[in-house]
Formats: sequence, structure tokens, C-alpha cells
Amino acid sequence: MIDLFIIKVGGNVIDNPALLQTFLGKFAAISAKKILIHGGGKVATRIGDKLGIESKYVDGRRITDADTIDVVTMVYGGLVNKQLVAQLQSRNCNAIGLTGADANIIPATKRPVKEIDFGFVGDVRTTELNTAPLISLLEGGVTPVFAPLTHDGKGQILNTNADTIASSLAIALSKKYNVRLIYCFEKKGVLSDPNDDNAVINLINKEIYQQLMDQKVLSDGILPKLDNAFGAINNGVKEVLIGHAEDVLSNTTATVAGTLIC
Amino acid sequence: MIDLFIIKVGGNVIDNPALLQTFLGKFAAISAKKILIHGGGKVATRIGDKLGIESKYVDGRRITDADTIDVVTMVYGGLVNKQLVAQLQSRNCNAIGLTGADANIIPATKRPVKEIDFGFVGDVRTTELNTAPLISLLEGGVTPVFAPLTHDGKGQILNTNADTIASSLAIALSKKYNVRLIYCFEKKGVLSDPNDDNAVINLINKEIYQQLMDQKVLSDGILPKLDNAFGAINNGVKEVLIGHAEDVLSNTTATVAGTLIC
Repeated sequence: MIDLFIIKVGGNVIDNPALLQTFLGKFAAISAKKILIHGGGKVATRIGDKLGIESKYVDGRRITDADTIDVVTMVYGGLVNKQLVAQLQSRNCNAIGLTGADANIIPATKRPVKEIDFGFVGDVRTTELNTAPLISLLEGGVTPVFAPLTHDGKGQILNTNADTIASSLAIALSKKYNVRLIYCFEKKGVLSDPNDDNAVINLINKEIYQQLMDQKVLSDGILPKLDNAFGAINNGVKEVLIGHAEDVLSNTTATVAGTLIC
Repeated sequence: MIDLFIIKVGGNVIDNPALLQTFLGKFAAISAKKILIHGGGKVATRIGDKLGIESKYVDGRRITDADTIDVVTMVYGGLVNKQLVAQLQSRNCNAIGLTGADANIIPATKRPVKEIDFGFVGDVRTTELNTAPLISLLEGGVTPVFAPLTHDGKGQILNTNADTIASSLAIALSKKYNVRLIYCFEKKGVLSDPNDDNAVINLINKEIYQQLMDQKVLSDGILPKLDNAFGAINNGVKEVLIGHAEDVLSNTTATVAGTLIC
């Protein structure tokens, strides 16, 4: 019996007002304990541009320099997070907006400089999460909403991948709860044919995953998500569900739209 | 015996890096339960200017239009709040950053339009504060840090005076704790001579306040703070202390620098 839903929603939903409202309505309607982790969307880039802060990329990967960490702290931790909280409150969901710095829930380490200096990017110290304040909030009927930010314990906020925050929280909380981790993205699920949006694979376990890898049918984009999913499953999370934001919250218990990984 | 310190620090401290570090060191060192409420400082104006959002005033009072509420949500609720949290964490103070929207702690009403339309400014619904999640955090050893933002319960974030948030929290929590409310500002305390920075009145009670009013020795700027202070005292708060950020946290129990109101 799943008793905690941990749901990650990406920038594609944050940036789409109609889809966001549908999503928030379905999220608020989940009666079980739940946590939301949100990405940032394009608003950080838009505000950074207006402030004259150039988005920098190396090999297609975004670099978080000193100006950029201020922008994402403002936009993810302030604007996006607090607007989501206020909107959930209006839907009778008692949300509280957090980053990994708050109550030291998600300590991280600034990524070491190797070939690329990613700047103020944090890798989660996965064994050091502090779940006590989170559990206290959940047990009090409060719904945590996380921005994709952590901290280094030395006073510095760090930018951290929202998928990783979701899986780290799911793993840490699986000691206490039966967790379903849900990744909302732009497809209906993991596809057996990247060109057919309806070719959803409903169930993936380790054997099926190996077969799919051998057959090379999976798109490159889905592989990090599946690695993340199996990392969570291997560390105590009961189920991972991957699918479209409109579908995956309709069925919080039995029937499943999307791809269930277990 | 005071068992909860509620401390409001203004923009003059937020804007002064050296003073801020001194303040945070003294704040972190308070071993009793504590809550910090911060103002915004000039960074919101600076970022608003860069974004091409004009600061609007009517009769010297700032108007919070739709663009401005986004800026203060970003800057107060994101940048300033999360940087304070990260810095307190580095000083072994287990801070959590909040707004009044979070966990619906501070519901507010958008100020009605009369002679002036203040825009997205919230007046605290003082009898409706939800202290249960706050008490749960405080009892768990967590230190709440509030940005001067509330919400209307209908999805809208509102800009709210930090002094009022501090006194509202102090009153609501005085049902559970013996509260000292501390206002840090740029003077050493309430002055009997506005031109003499050392003419600090150490103690004000209702009789002394009336005498000072009759003698017309108080500066106009201090009157709203004193009204706020007596409002708190009349509603259950044990003590209010007004003074400079460098002084008022040195003495969390007995001897007092600044002006004590009781």
C-alpha cells in the first residue's frame, strides 16, 4: 500500500499555464501524503536575459556562475516556488515551499572541477539527508514543495537537478514510507518506438530493461530517467511511474497510465 | 523566563554585509528558540530597476503593482531569504525559510482600495494565524526565517510589512511561549532627544509612554514601532526590545541595551 507520493514536475509544465492548472488540481486532490519537486522552466532564462546575465553552456550543459545562482535562487526558490505554494493553498492543499538548504534537508557538495567547471552546481550527499523535519511536516498534514536548490553547509546555495532531488528524497523517505516516485514529463511514458507517442511500455522491470537495452529501442533522453528510477528501486522505493503530467496523477492507487517501473 | 525570541531585522542590516555577518553570528548564538523576520533592503529596488520595473509611490508610500509583487516574491522570498538560511546553516543554526503562504501560517487580506490603491499589499488576518506547523518546527529545533510576504488564500502572494509580521507572530505564539519581540533598527533605542543618538530611554511602560507623548519628545518615525510594540504587549507578548542590531542580541536574558517595553 503506497502511503507517500513523491512527484517531480518539469519546466514544460511550469511554463504551460493551462497544463499547470490541470496538474495542480490533480496534485491537490491526492489524499495521501505527497511531496512536489519542481523544475524551473524558462522564466529563469527570461529574467536572466533581462538582467543582462548570459546563459552559458559548455558541451550543451548549462554552467551556473555567480550571477546565475542568484537568478535561480530568486526564480526557482522565490517566484516559482511561492507561486506554486499560494496556488496549492487556494486548492486546499496545505503546501510549504522549501529548498534543500531549509532545515538542512538536502546537504550537497559543489561539483568538483574536472574537464568542465559547472560552477555552483550541487551533487546531493545522498546518505546525509535530514528527513526528520520533513516527516514532522508530512505527519502534520503539510505538503512540502521543493525548488531544485541545495546548499553546501558553508553558506552557499547550489543548483541541483530536480530529478536527482526527487529520487534522493524518495530513497531517504522509503525507510519510513512505501513510496511511489512519479516523474511527469512531456511523453505518455517510456516508448518502445521513439517516433510513436502511443507506443507506451506499461511495465519495466530489470529483465525487461535489459531486453530493451539489448534491442536498442530506447531514446537517449529516457536513459538517465530510467537509471534514476532503478537507482531508486534498488534503494527501497516501491515503484517509479513515468508519464505525462495529465495522466500519471489520475490513478494514485491501482490502474496505471504511463510506465511503471518496479 | 523568556523562551522564544522573535527578532525583526530591517533592510539597513540586510544591505550592510559586515553588519549582517555580526548580526547573524549573534542570532545563531542564541540558544533559546527563535524566529527571524527580515525586511528586503534595496536589492529589490535594484533588481526591479534592472528589469525595467519602476518603483511607484503615492504620498511617499510604495505601491506594489503586478510586476512589483513578482520582484519582491523573487527577491525577498527567494534570494534574500534563502541566502540568510544558507548562512545560518553554516553557523550551525538549523534555519528554514518561510513566507506567510507556507503552511498557510499567515493568511492576509489584500488591502481594500480607498484613497490609495496599494496594489498587492496584504493586511494580516491576525486572528487566523496557523501556529501548529511553526510550533512543530520550533519544538524540533528548527529556526523559522520569514520573508515579509503573505497570501490571500486565493492563490495570490501579498507584500506585507515585516514589523507587522513580527508582532502578529509574537502575539499568536504568546499563547504557547513567553515571547520577547525584538526590533533591530538603525538607532540604539528609543531616544528622548532625536538629535542625541546616545539619549536612549531604557524602559518604557504605558505611563512613561503617555508622558513622552505629552512632552512631544519622540520622533515621528518611532511612533508606529511603539504602537506596534504596545499592541503586542497588550495581546500577550511579555517584552518588546527596540535597539541596534549590534546590541540587542548580546543580552538575551537579563541586562538590556536598547529600549525595553513592557
